[in-house]
Amino acid sequence: MTGDRGLRGHRAVDHDLGEAGSRVRLRFDPDDGRLASVAWSRISEPGDLAAFRLVERLGPVGALHEVLAGGPETARWRVRLRTTDPARDLATIHRFGGRLVVPGDEEWPAGLADLASTPPHCLWVRGPGRLDALCARAVAVVGARAATAYGEHVAAEMAAGLTERGVTVVSGAAYGVDGAAHRGALAAEGPTMAVLACGLDRWYPTGHRRLIDRIAATGAVVSEVPPGSAPTRWRFLERNRLIAAMTMVTIVVEAAARSGALATAGRALKLARTVAAVPGPVTSPSSTGCNQLLREGAVCVTDVAEVLELLYPIGEQLALPVAAPAADHDGLAVDDLRVYDALPIRSPAPVESLAQVAGLLEDEVAAGLGRLEVRGLAHREGSGWRRSARRPGRSGAGA
Amino acid sequence: MTGDRGLRGHRAVDHDLGEAGSRVRLRFDPDDGRLASVAWSRISEPGDLAAFRLVERLGPVGALHEVLAGGPETARWRVRLRTTDPARDLATIHRFGGRLVVPGDEEWPAGLADLASTPPHCLWVRGPGRLDALCARAVAVVGARAATAYGEHVAAEMAAGLTERGVTVVSGAAYGVDGAAHRGALAAEGPTMAVLACGLDRWYPTGHRRLIDRIAATGAVVSEVPPGSAPTRWRFLERNRLIAAMTMVTIVVEAAARSGALATAGRALKLARTVAAVPGPVTSPSSTGCNQLLREGAVCVTDVAEVLELLYPIGEQLALPVAAPAADHDGLAVDDLRVYDALPIRSPAPVESLAQVAGLLEDEVAAGLGRLEVRGLAHREGSGWRRSARRPGRSGAGA
Repeated sequence: MTGDRGLRGHRAVDHDLGEAGSRVRLRFDPDDGRLASVAWSRISEPGDLAAFRLVERLGPVGALHEVLAGGPETARWRVRLRTTDPARDLATIHRFGGRLVVPGDEEWPAGLADLASTPPHCLWVRGPGRLDALCARAVAVVGARAATAYGEHVAAEMAAGLTERGVTVVSGAAYGVDGAAHRGALAAEGPTMAVLACGLDRWYPTGHRRLIDRIAATGAVVSEVPPGSAPTRWRFLERNRLIAAMTMVTIVVEAAARSGALATAGRALKLARTVAAVPGPVTSPSSTGCNQLLREGAVCVTDVAEVLELLYPIGEQLALPVAAPAADHDGLAVDDLRVYDALPIRSPAPVESLAQVAGLLEDEVAAGLGRLEVRGLAHREGSGWRRSARRPGRSGAGA
Repeated sequence: MTGDRGLRGHRAVDHDLGEAGSRVRLRFDPDDGRLASVAWSRISEPGDLAAFRLVERLGPVGALHEVLAGGPETARWRVRLRTTDPARDLATIHRFGGRLVVPGDEEWPAGLADLASTPPHCLWVRGPGRLDALCARAVAVVGARAATAYGEHVAAEMAAGLTERGVTVVSGAAYGVDGAAHRGALAAEGPTMAVLACGLDRWYPTGHRRLIDRIAATGAVVSEVPPGSAPTRWRFLERNRLIAAMTMVTIVVEAAARSGALATAGRALKLARTVAAVPGPVTSPSSTGCNQLLREGAVCVTDVAEVLELLYPIGEQLALPVAAPAADHDGLAVDDLRVYDALPIRSPAPVESLAQVAGLLEDEVAAGLGRLEVRGLAHREGSGWRRSARRPGRSGAGA
């Protein structure tokens, strides 16, 4: 190993990479912990179990030396090592006003520890939001790219409501449900967090470039792959595990039978996170995945209050009751309901005939009529009784 | 007691009914078991626990004599006894081509035994369908009167599908979901069963008179209250227990927060029947009740196959898989997916560069390319490889 100062002031080192006996000039100092973490995010793909096991055992620097030492079991990581330049990656992210966050940093999200052997080597971040603060009360709101107006409406409403209650909405910045969720959160003037499957200089999907920049202006845009990385299918799948791990609850708002949002739900389940789904019409293929999740035991959520129930212990909730107009006869005891049923709407009837109709004793009918009268549901007219037209107002009465 | 032959050849009997010392001429023979059951369905309301306890202990005849013997605890049933004329009720039902079915009759539905202390005293029936046969494989399809097009569509489709599989659809003949369910069953040319809350000569709701007659033409229209009885709220609530008891599963298709269909679901739960609900848009108040049921643990059902799963043991089902188009890359192993991700769509790339992009060894890439080629997902072009445009047909290949 011979060291000297390389480009941009970093120490470059020559290494014999073993293949074909060639010596290669590393473009960075492998003994710098942060640069080593960046290098790992470059030479291995997200979720590479073997890479994480090695890093877990030896640390990023030690693991990198293991790769440099040669040997068949580390060969796959040497492929990309020639072109790896962590300092350039850092310069790129800084140019976009971003930063690198590595395990051990104060803002490293605690939930990532639940990823066991496949946590990210580092996170690339744009935005003023501190990740640990954003993730302290966070909910993933995810769903189909090909969302319907229904899915986008529910995602936006739910995200806005959660944001108003101080909950961070985390999603993937995709078209459809993801975008609607971020927009709903931004409309409620709260920070929101987007986790991308590509480098932060890629703005994928390109049609959401402005949205991603708006998210980065107040919240955080996050990725585990370094600048320049394309959003491959594999990276999308692995990105989902980050969304699941950094949140307490994953809500699938609208998803077709094979939607990627179901993968996120699956990751959340593996991490013992709560998975919730918004029900949708069984006639809508865009809701098939959600309804399937409900069949498999996902929590059914229909509004913000029900999501908050999942976040806070019972008693601390601000659950809103289901609003429905009360009927006049709600809450009547059995016999009173029978008397009420028997009461004519127009011509008054005597107690004797009411007893006949209701199948009750006259005494019972008389008692029931008294209770109905107090509730404003019956009144005497001449020698008989009939139903009162309308429930009286409660003005003037106590609570 | 003095007996003689009364109207229509029945033995009429004078009884001292105790109140005000008056003797009353009963219009029927209280020692005739079937007439006694009819009398009980006339003098007591559906679900009257005390009445059923008495009948259970003494039989309908003995219980009637207990009422005739006087005493305060049987007073409420004596109120209607003066006007009770079971023979006239039977004549009325016969005039409509109907019949009386009492406990112990061969066609008495077995499920009613689960009603414990509140089974009906008898059932009034119109239609050629034998109740025991209809109830052998029966599902209740219920829901809101104020149904939306969605609710009516799903009810009709589900009812038609169930009917085609030989399952009897049972409902309440109400407007909305009930009516749609019956119509769906009739459209599939199967018998369906309507349980009414009024006498069978009342055709409630009146707008469904033709529908009710059509149900009676091939299936069965059933009630526990005698001819002439009005459909009171109380009778509606108690009618729901019959629908629940005579079916194996109760499906709520569409229901608002306070829908009567939820009462049927509640009755079904009490009877240890399976309760299922069809999910609906959270933006539709007409689905609030269904979505609430799902939150409370009801089974989520989205199609006929899922309902059949609830009726038949696993293995006997004809469950249909969720239909969704397969993607080209479905089922690829992890490394193959990474190679597939790396493959260019237009200009072919050499293995070396694919290895670089995928972060895999060239050997691994080569092996993956071979597997992808077999699946028609990749092909060689010149010295490189690229993605194949389209999945090849499978014609000619074995299963």
